[in-house]
Amino acid sequence: MRIAEIMHRCAFTDCYPIDKNKVRVNLRTGKDIDEVYIIHGDPYTPHITGESEWRGERELMENSLELRSHKMFHIILNPEYKREQYYFELHSKDEVMYYLEDDFYQPEEMNLSGKTYQYFIFPWLNPSDVFQVPEWVEDTIWYQIFPDRYCRGDMGEKRVEVKPWKCEEDMSYWDNYGGDIKGIISKLDYMKDLGITGLYLTPIFDSNSNHKYNTSDYKKIDSDFGSEEDLKELIEEAHKRGIRIMLDAVFNHSGRDFAPWRDVLQNGKNSPYYNWFFIQQWPIETDHTKEWYKSYYSFAFASGMPKLNTNNPEVIEYIISLCKHWVTDLHIDGIRFDVGNEVSHTFLKAARRELKIINPELYLLGEIWRDSISWLQGDEYDSVMNYPFLESINDFWVHKNRTANEFMYSMNRCYTLYQEQVNGVLFNCLDSHDVPRAFTRCGSMDVFFQQLAILLTMQGSPSLYYGTEIAMSGGQDPINRKCMPWEEIEEGKYQEITGQVKQLIAIRREYSQTKCPYIEWVNHEGTRLIHYCKKNEDTNEIMNILINAEEKDIVIGTFEHILFARHYEEGIIKAGGVVIGIGFNNFQ
Amino acid sequence: MRIAEIMHRCAFTDCYPIDKNKVRVNLRTGKDIDEVYIIHGDPYTPHITGESEWRGERELMENSLELRSHKMFHIILNPEYKREQYYFELHSKDEVMYYLEDDFYQPEEMNLSGKTYQYFIFPWLNPSDVFQVPEWVEDTIWYQIFPDRYCRGDMGEKRVEVKPWKCEEDMSYWDNYGGDIKGIISKLDYMKDLGITGLYLTPIFDSNSNHKYNTSDYKKIDSDFGSEEDLKELIEEAHKRGIRIMLDAVFNHSGRDFAPWRDVLQNGKNSPYYNWFFIQQWPIETDHTKEWYKSYYSFAFASGMPKLNTNNPEVIEYIISLCKHWVTDLHIDGIRFDVGNEVSHTFLKAARRELKIINPELYLLGEIWRDSISWLQGDEYDSVMNYPFLESINDFWVHKNRTANEFMYSMNRCYTLYQEQVNGVLFNCLDSHDVPRAFTRCGSMDVFFQQLAILLTMQGSPSLYYGTEIAMSGGQDPINRKCMPWEEIEEGKYQEITGQVKQLIAIRREYSQTKCPYIEWVNHEGTRLIHYCKKNEDTNEIMNILINAEEKDIVIGTFEHILFARHYEEGIIKAGGVVIGIGFNNFQ
Repeated sequence: MRIAEIMHRCAFTDCYPIDKNKVRVNLRTGKDIDEVYIIHGDPYTPHITGESEWRGERELMENSLELRSHKMFHIILNPEYKREQYYFELHSKDEVMYYLEDDFYQPEEMNLSGKTYQYFIFPWLNPSDVFQVPEWVEDTIWYQIFPDRYCRGDMGEKRVEVKPWKCEEDMSYWDNYGGDIKGIISKLDYMKDLGITGLYLTPIFDSNSNHKYNTSDYKKIDSDFGSEEDLKELIEEAHKRGIRIMLDAVFNHSGRDFAPWRDVLQNGKNSPYYNWFFIQQWPIETDHTKEWYKSYYSFAFASGMPKLNTNNPEVIEYIISLCKHWVTDLHIDGIRFDVGNEVSHTFLKAARRELKIINPELYLLGEIWRDSISWLQGDEYDSVMNYPFLESINDFWVHKNRTANEFMYSMNRCYTLYQEQVNGVLFNCLDSHDVPRAFTRCGSMDVFFQQLAILLTMQGSPSLYYGTEIAMSGGQDPINRKCMPWEEIEEGKYQEITGQVKQLIAIRREYSQTKCPYIEWVNHEGTRLIHYCKKNEDTNEIMNILINAEEKDIVIGTFEHILFARHYEEGIIKAGGVVIGIGFNNFQ
Repeated sequence: MRIAEIMHRCAFTDCYPIDKNKVRVNLRTGKDIDEVYIIHGDPYTPHITGESEWRGERELMENSLELRSHKMFHIILNPEYKREQYYFELHSKDEVMYYLEDDFYQPEEMNLSGKTYQYFIFPWLNPSDVFQVPEWVEDTIWYQIFPDRYCRGDMGEKRVEVKPWKCEEDMSYWDNYGGDIKGIISKLDYMKDLGITGLYLTPIFDSNSNHKYNTSDYKKIDSDFGSEEDLKELIEEAHKRGIRIMLDAVFNHSGRDFAPWRDVLQNGKNSPYYNWFFIQQWPIETDHTKEWYKSYYSFAFASGMPKLNTNNPEVIEYIISLCKHWVTDLHIDGIRFDVGNEVSHTFLKAARRELKIINPELYLLGEIWRDSISWLQGDEYDSVMNYPFLESINDFWVHKNRTANEFMYSMNRCYTLYQEQVNGVLFNCLDSHDVPRAFTRCGSMDVFFQQLAILLTMQGSPSLYYGTEIAMSGGQDPINRKCMPWEEIEEGKYQEITGQVKQLIAIRREYSQTKCPYIEWVNHEGTRLIHYCKKNEDTNEIMNILINAEEKDIVIGTFEHILFARHYEEGIIKAGGVVIGIGFNNFQ
């Protein structure tokens, strides 16, 4: 038995409560393990049964998601008295071994006199320690808007120079186009019609840039975008249409016009805000031909984005008071924390504690691009932007020699990183304002729709970047932030594309199997035909999703009910095709 | 390359700050890996160098503790700008692979166009997130006292019936012997003479049992033990002698005489304390021939120990206010949380936050018998009672066929469970009031001293249970709680044993290599000769510790300076022998 491949700690994602009654136990093994039993029970049972020794109940564990080099097994336990003691019985082809916390044991070693058997113990299921995420998020279809480029509603004067509305790619990083909150309000019906139920706005607070990730004043809506009254109207009108609102909170750093930073520049060590930042040398170096970045820490060596010191209790209190205002007075539904892995855990824990008291259903989303387990323990974020999910999808089309089976491994990996509750609310996206647009990255309309089909049929909270509904193109910043071509849209130029996107969104909303964790991958040996089944957990109705990434047509089968199809005809899925259906008759 | 055996997440004990400047990175691999390089650097370096792509610096990782099936590699990084991006280059006999967050890559896969390489990222070293443990603990030698059995100072009347002071084994679970705080005070010089620098008292608050783990009144010292004035005197006198004081806090459950519980029994759902407990049915079942334990939760199905609901904010506030009094007014140095894994994380996090503000050097110790990683993330306990350490030692003598090499693996495992800072303050013990005494468990004076030598030369904060200095015997509760035989001690009956124990304690205090993490195990192939070296990190002076658990004499070598020896003579360590020395001349 390859014991070196087996891994379990009674902690983190290996053993955790999923609600106030149930505990999930996960075990990772190598592929040589055929079956695993868990022997489990209340550790103190002998105290009520009078038995001299603890004996657990033996139960078969279920196979769950398979990884490239590992198998995963799991079981849901219902500890009657809130405690579980357990160990594992592992079966490979010709061996049985027991896995306890300290070591692996042969059957004959399981009865040594004088030895304490170090069973795993989940000591007590305390309800306040259960990781609770907002319920509405798994049902939400997000739409991300970059306000300067979405729609201009207020045609009055703007503070900045406004360029003519431009839907072409020859734009500069610095241009402003005049999009604003009133413009967004005017498009709420359009969004509702698309099927959108959540709106994520990149920053809207006072700032001298078009992206506004360098805040000047956290208490003031950027006047070119509108006023706090406009924001209130947006939130109210969105809520009327069943659309939730998430704001972007840039607390990792401020802009150079933030009053406390200006105060520091002016008063140095005498400024009450000196410790609001990470100043390493005073006076700070302002000559940018010199090593200015050694004199104060900034985001990504951007001199205009001095890092806020979120270790400082004053800063923590200041930021939380801002968020409290948004939640209490503006009734926002979610906060996306920009650069969400560089702010302190101390701050995030305090923020969650205080904000969830006001609204337990507030969605706290961290911008983190990598494994985020350190922030997803139940006392900081609810979720993160799921870039690993995006990369798994992208990689399959980059590594042209990867089979669908390898795609399965990399997707499954994404769903084994966190607690089950989190998987349902992960912010899944194919792109954002920070990466090339999905359409451009995909390189073709076919691949674009194949990836969109994956996004909308996988567990997690899917997000579409504005313009995705028209397959908008655009590479790296700034051209992934083009203006929405409302004229062309109204002329019907994108009707067909948008129709298909709407169809996928409608499937997501109507068929609960799309959001459920249950997935069964169908292995078409050695090919690049992705095929998975999702099950409606109430009705057991199975949905089949097939995506042909081969360069040839493949005979697959027919469906009783086709929900979505491109390049599929009479049992044959063509190269670049995708089909989603119910009642699959497999020809193979 | 056996990639299925390799494990790293940029989280928990794999990657963490050890202080405000340094980050430790650990990597676990299989035994086929010969060398590991880390490629690391600030992720944003190209922003200041103008290079088009990120390129890290390549450094060889060090081998650290070897485990049964794995190797461990580590490196300490000093991120100049608080950020580290990294990946690993792994070398086995005939293969090189790269390990990134999402997957393992062949060298030729490291340059694919359109692919995002998912490097590991330690995003920012926030000082408030560094796990800080009290500095004094790693230098402390603890002495655990069970007050009823230690020494009677106040010969006046006691509330309970007091049995004659008994040092024999025919005692009952229920007897009281009259030991008290004044008695402990009278023995402080004795403890100081032993070399003790920390005193851990099992509970001293009002309770109707001799062990007092069923508290009636958390605000009152048990009158048979003394008064709060007596406790203050003890603390003051102990501090004068350089001895710290840790109290036992029983917050998982109360006793049946705790006023809120009595109020619930009397007033049921109308009691303001109804939710202070976990009441499952009302009225609760009081007939103990029936299933009373279904009506309320208790510790280990002990009906007189109703569990406190540490999820309830009122209970949390009540308990923290008690602790604040102990820390602020009584100046205690540590709190040991009884049944420390069944109270809520929510409570423990709040307790740490509030108590460390009062005294950042307060030692928070959890009674947890198993892997405690869930409580040792830096925001709950500083440390736990290190039963896995005790079991590793015990197991070596239970599994008679284990070699010294296997002992090394199981000890090394204990030192790979937590962050390095925690290892230094783990509460290492060979016994306690909850398990058979070390001497009885060991079965012989030789093994007893062999294990004691290990305890006192290993990293962590060693604790001696009272009576260990005279090799007191005693199996399971109650006979592991015998009265201290002061008459015999004064008559000099134990002089030789105590002298040797004192010698080991003195070595612990004088030679800093005993507490340091650095350990080099010497492999005497296939034998049960334990042999390890510890290094003084300032002077590089090496200490050799050898323990012969074979049934025969072994020729080992001589020492320039022998610090402690039993059954060692002229280069030969006899069966049952132990030797600790400096300047070892190996004969082998």
